[in-house]
Amino acid sequence: MREDFFTLRTVMWDKGKVRMIDQTVLPQRLVYKDYDTWEGVADAIRRMVVRGAPAIGVAAAMGVAVAAQSSKADDKEGLLKDISRAAAGLRATRPTAVNLFWGIDRVVAAARSARGGVDKMVRTVISTAVEMAEEDVETNRRLGKVGEPLIEDGDVVMTQCNAGALATVGYGTALGVIRAAAEAGKCVKVIVNETRPALQGARLTAFELVRDGFHCTLISDTAVGYMMSSGRVDKVIVGADRITKDGHVFNKIGTYQVAVLANRHGVPFYAAAPYSTFDMRRTHDKVVIEERAAEEVFQVRGKRITPKGIAIANPAFDDTPPELISAIVSDKGLIGRPVEDNISSVIR
Amino acid sequence: MREDFFTLRTVMWDKGKVRMIDQTVLPQRLVYKDYDTWEGVADAIRRMVVRGAPAIGVAAAMGVAVAAQSSKADDKEGLLKDISRAAAGLRATRPTAVNLFWGIDRVVAAARSARGGVDKMVRTVISTAVEMAEEDVETNRRLGKVGEPLIEDGDVVMTQCNAGALATVGYGTALGVIRAAAEAGKCVKVIVNETRPALQGARLTAFELVRDGFHCTLISDTAVGYMMSSGRVDKVIVGADRITKDGHVFNKIGTYQVAVLANRHGVPFYAAAPYSTFDMRRTHDKVVIEERAAEEVFQVRGKRITPKGIAIANPAFDDTPPELISAIVSDKGLIGRPVEDNISSVIR
Repeated sequence: MREDFFTLRTVMWDKGKVRMIDQTVLPQRLVYKDYDTWEGVADAIRRMVVRGAPAIGVAAAMGVAVAAQSSKADDKEGLLKDISRAAAGLRATRPTAVNLFWGIDRVVAAARSARGGVDKMVRTVISTAVEMAEEDVETNRRLGKVGEPLIEDGDVVMTQCNAGALATVGYGTALGVIRAAAEAGKCVKVIVNETRPALQGARLTAFELVRDGFHCTLISDTAVGYMMSSGRVDKVIVGADRITKDGHVFNKIGTYQVAVLANRHGVPFYAAAPYSTFDMRRTHDKVVIEERAAEEVFQVRGKRITPKGIAIANPAFDDTPPELISAIVSDKGLIGRPVEDNISSVIR
Repeated sequence: MREDFFTLRTVMWDKGKVRMIDQTVLPQRLVYKDYDTWEGVADAIRRMVVRGAPAIGVAAAMGVAVAAQSSKADDKEGLLKDISRAAAGLRATRPTAVNLFWGIDRVVAAARSARGGVDKMVRTVISTAVEMAEEDVETNRRLGKVGEPLIEDGDVVMTQCNAGALATVGYGTALGVIRAAAEAGKCVKVIVNETRPALQGARLTAFELVRDGFHCTLISDTAVGYMMSSGRVDKVIVGADRITKDGHVFNKIGTYQVAVLANRHGVPFYAAAPYSTFDMRRTHDKVVIEERAAEEVFQVRGKRITPKGIAIANPAFDDTPPELISAIVSDKGLIGRPVEDNISSVIR
């Protein structure tokens, strides 16, 4: 087992540019892309060059930072206007993951409260975004330690989508818990659900866990029920794109059905997310589920799989209600059952 | 709406050869392949050139017929030996769908009971196989009429895999019920689950239903739960590869989880199958679930989707227990709840 898990960084600030792993070409190629405009960062978020709730929160904050850096404004009011325009554009990229709004809000607030002149404001925005990236890895390591006791030596753990290093700046949330369990000396095997349409399980979770030396088994999304009914799954752990104050977990499409099946078969179902994923102002009925482009469904890695003339539905997320959740792992502590009642005492 | 649904025939006897639609290249190309050896037919069944429980039953029977036809034996004993060898080879192709064994048993029994000489025995085997193909379409039309009252005007019906014309000689079982409802003047819309790994929903069900003018919506397998929880599904109807005497439905991988979700959301779940799919000698614990090649999961239409070094699980079928089944539609009549008690009074 490697000593330091997944040392690659998904999002980073590099000499005035936002550098990100291009997740659309993984696992075949590991390519970095540099962005020096907020529009470029927004496009990267939209096209899922970068994805995963914590990662897009930091990427969006850095998007605001490049906008501040390249602003031609010579007073703070003009600079704030440029920052606000970038913030609005970045906010409009994806509606479901709350970290996006959290990340943008935080750098905008830092700009507003910056003392000194225009230069100081720019430096404050950049340093806040860079700090957020550093904090993200620390937050995930803390979260991993909180969740690690849930995993027993020898467990086979199923996961949906990618809540790993690639969904964050590094280390991961759900996969961070698995990494922490391995660091504590436990043997953990992972069942990776491929997670159509965008195949984040087959492409990204498989990539980073195989790279770290974990034993992984890939299954089609159709085989989740069979794996559970044949007794091959000990635990399920997933990430989250938004957790509302009433304990609903919004996560990648397919999560809800995995939770329903886990519940039927008595398999514990955990969600793992940092404090920035909690939306303590909204209940589940107020969350918009993003509907993405038809192409994601009607083709796979560029190959068309269905005839013309068919309609497509492509919801990107679903809602797992609290009664299906055994516990939520956060960096602030474990939120046990009933999660809808316990959430507010852990996340303040 | 077309007057005569899906006039193509999936499997047919054509001048001493078995002619079949090559389902591996659909929906891009509609290609027929001819087979004049039982080994060729066995390979076609194994590779899923032909698939679907009723279709492989007839294809295997025709495989025995080409073996009989090309036998060099000059006495009935020698011919029966050649027939038995072909039968054994064809039996070994796929373990789960019971129609395969039913189809082979029927032509072998016809050979054994044939009167007259070697020529007469060959003619009997061929005519039995051809009769089975003709009967299949009639059986499905009867089955369609039995199931049609379950579908209401305006229903949105979800289906898994392909239990259509392409899974049979023609018309289909689950899709036969949908066709019968349309013939009865009802408007039926269909949600097609793509059905990884082999994508029979996206490729085959979409192909034949779009061709017949049905409004279809394709979804990823991960979106089943969301479609149900958002109230967009009125009924589910699927086919079956084997129905055991205790009322368990073995069908394409993913069926079980669709049934669990339908149950949770109060959506009626129906299975449709001809009498040849019922295994009234076995209970569910005696059925072998086929494990297919890893390639089906780690690539999609020839494109690799995951890194090397990952293990693969690829169960081809799963088991839906009777408590999740609202009714089974057969050509012998409707089997209502509790299906495990009512099955033996309908299928004798």
